[in-house]
Amino acid sequence: MTATMRIRTNLPAVEAYMHSCMRDSAHDMEHVYRVLQYALHIAAHEGGADTELLTAACLLHDIGRAEQFADPQVDHALCGAEKAYQWLSANGYAEEFAHAVSDCIQTHRFRSDHPPQSLEAKILFDADKLDVCGAVGIARTLFYLAQVSQPLYTLTESGEVPDGSRDTEPSFLREYKYKLETMYDRFYTRQGAALAAERKSAAQNFYESLLAEARECYSSQPGRRQPT
Amino acid sequence: MTATMRIRTNLPAVEAYMHSCMRDSAHDMEHVYRVLQYALHIAAHEGGADTELLTAACLLHDIGRAEQFADPQVDHALCGAEKAYQWLSANGYAEEFAHAVSDCIQTHRFRSDHPPQSLEAKILFDADKLDVCGAVGIARTLFYLAQVSQPLYTLTESGEVPDGSRDTEPSFLREYKYKLETMYDRFYTRQGAALAAERKSAAQNFYESLLAEARECYSSQPGRRQPT
Repeated sequence: MTATMRIRTNLPAVEAYMHSCMRDSAHDMEHVYRVLQYALHIAAHEGGADTELLTAACLLHDIGRAEQFADPQVDHALCGAEKAYQWLSANGYAEEFAHAVSDCIQTHRFRSDHPPQSLEAKILFDADKLDVCGAVGIARTLFYLAQVSQPLYTLTESGEVPDGSRDTEPSFLREYKYKLETMYDRFYTRQGAALAAERKSAAQNFYESLLAEARECYSSQPGRRQPT
Repeated sequence: MTATMRIRTNLPAVEAYMHSCMRDSAHDMEHVYRVLQYALHIAAHEGGADTELLTAACLLHDIGRAEQFADPQVDHALCGAEKAYQWLSANGYAEEFAHAVSDCIQTHRFRSDHPPQSLEAKILFDADKLDVCGAVGIARTLFYLAQVSQPLYTLTESGEVPDGSRDTEPSFLREYKYKLETMYDRFYTRQGAALAAERKSAAQNFYESLLAEARECYSSQPGRRQPT
């Protein structure tokens, strides 16, 4: 049980259901609470959002992760949207509320064909993307690479470390160039974009340091010349 | 199979034995090849090291990891030293060579009661510690935390993010303050210390960014006040 679980929202039953869906993933749980914090922060600046709806959507947005992990064909946004609708409907929440929460969850995914429509859906989308920015985004990406056993970098046939921008094999450097670096101008809310921009240099500095260290390491080519 | 395996040393049988001991851990394998690169780089600057002995010691230094992972009471340095001695002895290497490689492996661990004695043992120690420095060290620490499901940070009872220096619960911030930050003045070779010093700021910048982002996230305390 991580310390982040000490936070209490005003939707304890929704929170308990989320915990039951994610019991084996402490890191996913941390992410959920950060998304909730970002979302309420953005909502406070943007104004006009239904914070109870937003809180429920944030808490439940990743409850389809386990299903997607078990079967990569499953889209966790669609699966989570359906699970959230069913649970909220079965637990005394109004039909309209259950539908609105479900809609937010369905449209939170980056590569979705369904862009967010409501203000709450746009805020959830931005809050979720904020957690891919900055040092936290780097850390989460590395957690993911550890889980799927992907490397930090690849090597070319001549033993050099490419910068990731033209890599075909998965690696941290490739993930940074293809995904993390391109996040920062894709936000729906002004506050989300502003928070993301503040975090960009931390991620960029880490990428550049890692690339430089890896290149320095392999530049000596010990397999090709004998050290003196 | 990661791209780092494309490197070829002049000890292919030793390398193949290392692969057989670590077949499930791509990240451990990347680490082994970086340590080899650092070690040969340091040896080239220090002079006087037996590079065949050093190469064997680098390749085999973590072959006891699987045993330690299965039983945390096992010390992977002692286990790996014994495995290396047995394998080298059984595969035609001279008794003296097998002993010297085994000694390097036995003393490579940071918290060992056995400090490194030979030049090759000191170089292996430094090369292994270099891989805990800088951005690569941060990445490896995050890989480890993902494996053991430890969080990035903890929260105090009042919902604040402590800097890790007085934490009792495990987290990335604690690991940085207790281990990563204190690495840089514990090297045996001048070249090892110099390379480590070059990498210090990348690690420190990442730690400070992560701490600042986490603190900013939790400063809004959404569980305690309603956003407007």
